[in-house]
Amino acid sequence: MMHLESMFHCKLASSLVFSNPLLATAPNSEAAPMVLAGVLLSLVFIYLASKLGGELSKLVDLPPVLGELVAGVIVGVSALHLLVFPEAGAVASDSVVMTILQKFAGLSPENIGGVFASSSEVISVLAELGVIILLFEIGLESDLRELQKVGSRAAIVAVVGVVAPFVAGTAGLILIFGMPTIPAVFAGAALTATSIGITSKVLSELGQLKSTEGQIIVGAAVIDDVLGIIVLAVVASLAKTGEVDVTNLIYLIISATAFLLGSIFLGKFFNQSFVAIAEKLQTRGKLVIPALIFALLMAFLANAIHLEAILGAFAAGLVLDETDKRKELDQQIIPIADVLVPIFFVSVGARVDLSVLNPSSVDNRQGLVIAAFLIVVAIIGKVITGWAVFGQEKINRLAIGIGMIPRGEVGLVFAGIGAASGVLDKPLQAAIIIMVILTTFVAPPLLRFAFQGEAIEEPDLAATNNQ
Amino acid sequence: MMHLESMFHCKLASSLVFSNPLLATAPNSEAAPMVLAGVLLSLVFIYLASKLGGELSKLVDLPPVLGELVAGVIVGVSALHLLVFPEAGAVASDSVVMTILQKFAGLSPENIGGVFASSSEVISVLAELGVIILLFEIGLESDLRELQKVGSRAAIVAVVGVVAPFVAGTAGLILIFGMPTIPAVFAGAALTATSIGITSKVLSELGQLKSTEGQIIVGAAVIDDVLGIIVLAVVASLAKTGEVDVTNLIYLIISATAFLLGSIFLGKFFNQSFVAIAEKLQTRGKLVIPALIFALLMAFLANAIHLEAILGAFAAGLVLDETDKRKELDQQIIPIADVLVPIFFVSVGARVDLSVLNPSSVDNRQGLVIAAFLIVVAIIGKVITGWAVFGQEKINRLAIGIGMIPRGEVGLVFAGIGAASGVLDKPLQAAIIIMVILTTFVAPPLLRFAFQGEAIEEPDLAATNNQ
Repeated sequence: MMHLESMFHCKLASSLVFSNPLLATAPNSEAAPMVLAGVLLSLVFIYLASKLGGELSKLVDLPPVLGELVAGVIVGVSALHLLVFPEAGAVASDSVVMTILQKFAGLSPENIGGVFASSSEVISVLAELGVIILLFEIGLESDLRELQKVGSRAAIVAVVGVVAPFVAGTAGLILIFGMPTIPAVFAGAALTATSIGITSKVLSELGQLKSTEGQIIVGAAVIDDVLGIIVLAVVASLAKTGEVDVTNLIYLIISATAFLLGSIFLGKFFNQSFVAIAEKLQTRGKLVIPALIFALLMAFLANAIHLEAILGAFAAGLVLDETDKRKELDQQIIPIADVLVPIFFVSVGARVDLSVLNPSSVDNRQGLVIAAFLIVVAIIGKVITGWAVFGQEKINRLAIGIGMIPRGEVGLVFAGIGAASGVLDKPLQAAIIIMVILTTFVAPPLLRFAFQGEAIEEPDLAATNNQ
Repeated sequence: MMHLESMFHCKLASSLVFSNPLLATAPNSEAAPMVLAGVLLSLVFIYLASKLGGELSKLVDLPPVLGELVAGVIVGVSALHLLVFPEAGAVASDSVVMTILQKFAGLSPENIGGVFASSSEVISVLAELGVIILLFEIGLESDLRELQKVGSRAAIVAVVGVVAPFVAGTAGLILIFGMPTIPAVFAGAALTATSIGITSKVLSELGQLKSTEGQIIVGAAVIDDVLGIIVLAVVASLAKTGEVDVTNLIYLIISATAFLLGSIFLGKFFNQSFVAIAEKLQTRGKLVIPALIFALLMAFLANAIHLEAILGAFAAGLVLDETDKRKELDQQIIPIADVLVPIFFVSVGARVDLSVLNPSSVDNRQGLVIAAFLIVVAIIGKVITGWAVFGQEKINRLAIGIGMIPRGEVGLVFAGIGAASGVLDKPLQAAIIIMVILTTFVAPPLLRFAFQGEAIEEPDLAATNNQ
């Protein structure tokens, strides 16, 4: 099957190059519109899934991103096969989109392999552009000045929340399960994420966003983003080279940190020129296009020095966050993110093969045990962060720890990059996704429980009571 | 050279499928991030070119789209080679983006062919999504109710403005230049377009937008869009099958017309459900995602029945234009169009090989003569439309005719689709682009001249004086 696929691809590649020697401008005249048709139909399925999943999630009071992910799992390789990717071993005949094109749009059998490969490639790159825009948006929304206020207490929570689950997860996977170093490190890294979006939404519903606990959680989640993205850049680079070598590791940690701090530092000067340029421009897209040029260039640079593109996009967001144009820019990035980000979330879900965790098969036991292990480490590793806060006696330490639990979209970024880099085998990939879903799922009710009785009557008073 | 390219592609294709047999999820671990890097860098060049060109154009009071196109020519195969496409015969070593990746990002020689092919494919599909969004936006902004007011006079101007240049252009190319039917028909079709955007901007500057002449021009330009897109769908389909056969021609004309009228008719019922659904949704992108699902699905359907994707997107725009949500939707589509549409304009420019029109080579004379012929037909074929208006004596017929001259973005859509379909050889492609640039360039000053003395002092009075 795979061999045949490859032959088709070769045949297409040759026919693309040799077809119509008289007309140098001619692509394969059938394949080109079919690739577009494949992309259009895939996007229709992706958007339908993301909206259905997101809205259903919202109806039962869960974060929409959870619904988009689960909808992705449903349309993906685990169930409906509306969206499958060749890197995961799927061939064109596995894809419902290709079957539809063949039946109703006249796609010929000799072109199907190439069209499937090309349209999947386009969807993959669109998903990557989606996560780049997502991190750019997260950067734009992370307020570095706010952060300095919460200061050291938030920092200690963040550091403990990154180190504890990373060390426990990685060591456990290597020592208990005998996993090779690289996938173990990647899975450990995926445990470090904290989703600021989900926690801060629940906190604001509970009237706890401005309480000491709320401020510490939000501050720690922002620092966690910064640390996490450095960890991810380092780990993903290790995965590319395939070996853990101390010199390389030190180089990566230094270059990722230097890249981030350097761009924030240089950004303070660049800020003014950016605003000055954007104010002089007169044509459509005068704010959003210069911002995108900057974000994509930073993403390219990060990628070119063997870090991750999203690190560059995040740094670009942090830099532009400091300008006067921030609000206006944020407003215009929103529809672009609304269009691109769901492609990423749904794709991450679609790539997960849940069948590898089906408990009825004995072979799958190991994967299930790993998933259970990751969930336990993910929860305990974050809950203990509350007790890392020094000083204050009457602080709600349990609430702080629970507030750090949900991995949400940030955990998905780790899972997505890990899957794309090819270091995670299917059971580990599925186990990480299950961990992300479960931690995101349990955090809101647990957080309500931890704050119980404190904020029900007078949210603002409750916030000061604890100080 | 071409053979080598094809071998590289095959090698990559095989290595993509066979690499890492133990890890089924593994893509080629070097190629995937390099494709992303290639896309990111290409987008940076595209956006830089579009903003520089657009702003410079605006500074000298020309339409920004003209500057974006010329900037595309400059970054493309004619000059800087920052953006080149393999279908036009370019190989990876022609591309500055690939050279940069090779020098600074460690792209290896054995992967360069595949990475070039993949990232060019992604940019091509993004450009196609750009033109789909552009036509969706044009559809959203074409007000069918306004159109009914201007009625028959606008319709006759539009019909003459489509038929005259099409017949004169096609017949001239076949009879005088001995061109084969299909490219001649395509070039003739490209002559039919009228850019409503450019004309209406100049008209509003002259205070003539609400005058009888202005109303007729704008109405005719809208009808011209509808007729033009039907002509394009028919012609592009002919190009795909490669033969002009009367049964096929009749089928295409009927199916394109039926598709457009049918969707407008069915849309009247669908409208209400769309608004009802959009109002129930609660998550981010609640308006723009359902609208995109509809637009992309319509584009897919038009593509699947062998018409053009843009016909579907245009029909979707016309349908949603009739809803109460139109303004809000328009507002949200703007940033998405700002991001995607420049990719289309710059790509169209980048694909044009101007060297084929270099007058110093004798071989190029034919192409230059064809370009001159197209320009003459393009101008005369539209100027005469003014005399097609019946009845009114004191109407400014010259102004109406001149108002229909600029081809602008609509002409580029024709040129772009023609180039992608492979039926236009390089000289004809370049000749069409030159025609689009020149007609767009001369229309604003000519229109000012034609209205001279009429509107300088009191625009509103001048508008009624003529009635």
